[in-house]
Amino acid sequence: MTPSPGPEMHALVRRLYPLCRSITGDGVRHTLDIVEEYLPLTRHEVPTGTQVLDWTVPQEWNIRDAWVADTDGRRVVDFAESNLHVVSYSVPVSARMPLARLREHLHTLPDQPSLVPYRTSYYAPAWGFCLAQDTLDAMPDGDYDVHIDSTLADGHLTYAEHVVPGRVTDEVLVSCHTCHPSLANDNLAGIAVAVFLARELAQRTPHYTYRFLFAPGTIGSITWLARNTEHIDRVKHGLVLACAGDAGALTYKRSRRGDAEIDRVVRYVLDSSGRPHTIVGFSPYGYDERQFCSPGFNLGVGSLTRTPYAGYPEYHTSADNPDFVLPEAMADTLAACREAFAVLDRNRRYVNTSPYGEPQLGKRGLYDSLGGRSDAKQAQLAMLWVLNLSDGDHSLLDIAERSGLPFGTLADAGTALLAAGLLKE
Amino acid sequence: MTPSPGPEMHALVRRLYPLCRSITGDGVRHTLDIVEEYLPLTRHEVPTGTQVLDWTVPQEWNIRDAWVADTDGRRVVDFAESNLHVVSYSVPVSARMPLARLREHLHTLPDQPSLVPYRTSYYAPAWGFCLAQDTLDAMPDGDYDVHIDSTLADGHLTYAEHVVPGRVTDEVLVSCHTCHPSLANDNLAGIAVAVFLARELAQRTPHYTYRFLFAPGTIGSITWLARNTEHIDRVKHGLVLACAGDAGALTYKRSRRGDAEIDRVVRYVLDSSGRPHTIVGFSPYGYDERQFCSPGFNLGVGSLTRTPYAGYPEYHTSADNPDFVLPEAMADTLAACREAFAVLDRNRRYVNTSPYGEPQLGKRGLYDSLGGRSDAKQAQLAMLWVLNLSDGDHSLLDIAERSGLPFGTLADAGTALLAAGLLKE
Amino acid sequence: MTPSPGPEMHALVRRLYPLCRSITGDGVRHTLDIVEEYLPLTRHEVPTGTQVLDWTVPQEWNIRDAWVADTDGRRVVDFAESNLHVVSYSVPVSARMPLARLREHLHTLPDQPSLVPYRTSYYAPAWGFCLAQDTLDAMPDGDYDVHIDSTLADGHLTYAEHVVPGRVTDEVLVSCHTCHPSLANDNLAGIAVAVFLARELAQRTPHYTYRFLFAPGTIGSITWLARNTEHIDRVKHGLVLACAGDAGALTYKRSRRGDAEIDRVVRYVLDSSGRPHTIVGFSPYGYDERQFCSPGFNLGVGSLTRTPYAGYPEYHTSADNPDFVLPEAMADTLAACREAFAVLDRNRRYVNTSPYGEPQLGKRGLYDSLGGRSDAKQAQLAMLWVLNLSDGDHSLLDIAERSGLPFGTLADAGTALLAAGLLKE
Repeated sequence: MTPSPGPEMHALVRRLYPLCRSITGDGVRHTLDIVEEYLPLTRHEVPTGTQVLDWTVPQEWNIRDAWVADTDGRRVVDFAESNLHVVSYSVPVSARMPLARLREHLHTLPDQPSLVPYRTSYYAPAWGFCLAQDTLDAMPDGDYDVHIDSTLADGHLTYAEHVVPGRVTDEVLVSCHTCHPSLANDNLAGIAVAVFLARELAQRTPHYTYRFLFAPGTIGSITWLARNTEHIDRVKHGLVLACAGDAGALTYKRSRRGDAEIDRVVRYVLDSSGRPHTIVGFSPYGYDERQFCSPGFNLGVGSLTRTPYAGYPEYHTSADNPDFVLPEAMADTLAACREAFAVLDRNRRYVNTSPYGEPQLGKRGLYDSLGGRSDAKQAQLAMLWVLNLSDGDHSLLDIAERSGLPFGTLADAGTALLAAGLLKE
Repeated sequence: MTPSPGPEMHALVRRLYPLCRSITGDGVRHTLDIVEEYLPLTRHEVPTGTQVLDWTVPQEWNIRDAWVADTDGRRVVDFAESNLHVVSYSVPVSARMPLARLREHLHTLPDQPSLVPYRTSYYAPAWGFCLAQDTLDAMPDGDYDVHIDSTLADGHLTYAEHVVPGRVTDEVLVSCHTCHPSLANDNLAGIAVAVFLARELAQRTPHYTYRFLFAPGTIGSITWLARNTEHIDRVKHGLVLACAGDAGALTYKRSRRGDAEIDRVVRYVLDSSGRPHTIVGFSPYGYDERQFCSPGFNLGVGSLTRTPYAGYPEYHTSADNPDFVLPEAMADTLAACREAFAVLDRNRRYVNTSPYGEPQLGKRGLYDSLGGRSDAKQAQLAMLWVLNLSDGDHSLLDIAERSGLPFGTLADAGTALLAAGLLKE
Repeated sequence: MTPSPGPEMHALVRRLYPLCRSITGDGVRHTLDIVEEYLPLTRHEVPTGTQVLDWTVPQEWNIRDAWVADTDGRRVVDFAESNLHVVSYSVPVSARMPLARLREHLHTLPDQPSLVPYRTSYYAPAWGFCLAQDTLDAMPDGDYDVHIDSTLADGHLTYAEHVVPGRVTDEVLVSCHTCHPSLANDNLAGIAVAVFLARELAQRTPHYTYRFLFAPGTIGSITWLARNTEHIDRVKHGLVLACAGDAGALTYKRSRRGDAEIDRVVRYVLDSSGRPHTIVGFSPYGYDERQFCSPGFNLGVGSLTRTPYAGYPEYHTSADNPDFVLPEAMADTLAACREAFAVLDRNRRYVNTSPYGEPQLGKRGLYDSLGGRSDAKQAQLAMLWVLNLSDGDHSLLDIAERSGLPFGTLADAGTALLAAGLLKE
């Protein structure tokens, strides 16, 4: 038995966790360096100022150090302890100011006083620190030195692709965001599942070409879309992976289309797997499905998570750390992807070449020759269903749903009937 | 706080109650005189004999007096007490006859022995009296003098219109029947709600032009349709108001189309208002929706009542008097109309001018610049929903139903995005 | 009151029961001889070797005797006792062999040890015997003489038709299979119901032409389809009758189309009759609906049974004997067919010739002239419904389902309105 990939994926999460990612900068590049130990990547560096759809690639942000210290030099908030402590894209600052003025730049979670929140300010020049409410409460009035050693300068936005070539050029897009700093479930678990999924798919030549996209959220997918608009119609299906490792049940969020093939495939796989799960309708809030499903593109891209976006108290806080992510949960997310793509990859729409009456299966060796038995064999039943509904309008998944027979049995029947010349593609 | 219009509407019902309306005649004209104290009207007088669709405008009926008296001259049934006592459109008669023969002309409600029924004979020359079964039971055998001082002669059919001009010439038709004599819920309450609705709508310029029709049932709407056939396609939506004041919950009867915009709007408003209510399918029985929804016209006209047509024991009896109608019920019917037309009037189908990816709301001042906060603001969410679904196929009402966000919030988002150039109409 | 046809149908089942039917041969011919005592038939004899769609008409099989005897000559399995004892289409054999070798040719039902199964081997040359497991268990080891006096030779496949001419040439196909030997419910009861249904229909001229097909299963319907392909589009509706006499409730299996008119008619009749019943979706397994509903033909043919195909323990065993079939059950199946065809035959799609507003029914004598009565008469309501929905899109059945009025009342209204010139066909 193959050992579970859960622990290996969890190890990857732990390695990636300390890096200070943002929508640009070296944290993203180092993340991709580590991913590349598992998977060859094609990297893209897009210059600051490039117009991408309605947006502009921003300046590149890098940070070396950041702290708030009391006048005795004791660091009460320190980027070196956790990169969540600094508001992402903070401009450099070096100043002394009283707590009263500093407070305008401090972010806490009063309802979760021991946790550090995650905050960003990508498109408005600002600086700030995030800290536990408890820490703030313990800070005496008086002056503080604040220091952010960051740079915001023309540079590049970095993203990467990995392609598993298939027998056809039609593509399945698997996307995950790489912009979050030390947040494990959102989205290091998603990155880890994508990496291991890509490795599994490459073990055989799939039907579709599978394209994996590692890019910062929003601006990254927008940049990718802007640079791939001309060929976007080769993306037939897609899945955005996020929050892939918490203990919750799987949640599938439909594409904007609502009944895209990926929507039906994932629902079928989750329903027939017996897993507890939730299917939710599309909403224009969440991860990069927002961009892929914008009305101009309207791709058949859904989103698979465990507990969805903003649905758990640890979301966007320091509690979303590697301990919050379970190896077996990541393994289960990976398995669900594997099962869904197994169906997607085999889902065909055949045409019965002998549609008038049933073809005589017996003379082709496809039928038990001794009739009259009251127990119909499932494989024969599958052939009859595939023949009956293969009129060009029904896919194997349609037939699976209508017949109640397992997809795999029907796909095998399709393969046998195709070989016998009774179906054509 | 605006005082409830209920008492004022109820006062109007009381004023209109004693008039002897029918499908033609001075009772209708006097009714319109009183309505005109509230609302300017355009009156129409259509001559007897005019062909209107499959019908002919009948002779005009007027009545001055009618009674049944015993041979001592005691009036046992008297039109002066209630105009329900005479069968509407009774031809004149002056005769003495034994009770046995008179009975053929007497109508009672044996199951409601104290109530006087309402009967008409518009299209077959006849005469008759309506009385309580108790009264009839108390009438001794013997001769009676019967007297009906009516005229049935060439004249006119009278109806009136009031138009609230909108920003577009597309129309919303609000219709109520004006032919019933002393019956309060059916339909003086409907007339009162229509009058007050028209006054409210005129306080601002609505999007649609709202046309209010005060016309006798069946022949009146048929006459109106016949005279407006050429321009009928300007009627985009409509509502027939009747039984608008009883204590029952609101009932909306769908148009024949079943999913016309008015059907969806009223359902949405009633559902989201939390009011107890009932939605019923179209049936070709009831009020003038029968004519507006005849298959040749097939207008998007529904009907709003409280307890529907023939659904209460007081229906078409002397018990449907002003005490049966509640000021607060009329106010509630008015409010439901107001709410429905507020949605209808703002329901747009926009097109996203920047449909590839999300437009950058932040640079247009439409988005909170400090990202990463886990609580999505409803207004921002509304903008994302409107942008995502504004592809020309989805109306704001579609978006409200799909998103679960309040219609008003979405309509406000639409207005803001339109102003920012991100939507076009 | 007409006496129930149940006992007469049951008598027919009893007469047909002993004959050794198969997909070809004299057993089928003798069956048709008996049917012809009730109903004139057009017989068809199709030569062995004829290509029929993807199939070939097989050799004709006839059998005179078959037995297994011990070496003392005692017949332990004897065709003379029941024709189920021999595997249908067994090739001739005459041999002595030990029980161990004989066992390969013996078929039993270990879970129903007292019953004899029904087995066939139409398309692979083989021979065999069917017997009770109890019988087999009692057979001592040792040698046995086996003897099958059968012939498998070029000949014909036999089927028959009976046509009830209608007012139009569009056809309703009623099909039942005639190939099963001594099995009563499957399908002698179906044959009996078809025979009596045809006789009833001939008592008046129906709207449709009804074609009854008595043919062996699968190869018979395939042969008929092959010989009628050119005119197949005259078959507008159809019903396959099988398992028509057991004590179970009626089951209707939809056509492949799922919403063919026959599907809607039978559902309407079963629903409104108050009978317990089941409606199941199409599946490509069962009786000859498999062929009629193959994707190339895709006819509107459903299947009516009581307990469906393979759904009862007596299915395809010696327990499916005439005692398993109930006269009253067959009478009920017949009644359901009669009711369904009564609706199907009257189901029209009219066009209102006066679609603008309601036509004035009163001036045509179609309406109670004294209006204002609160009890709507059903017949008048039916006229209003038929007028309102007769736009060419709605059939009377559509109107029945939407209005809740009985189909017959609506059909009568349609007839009256047609006579008055208010509808056209």
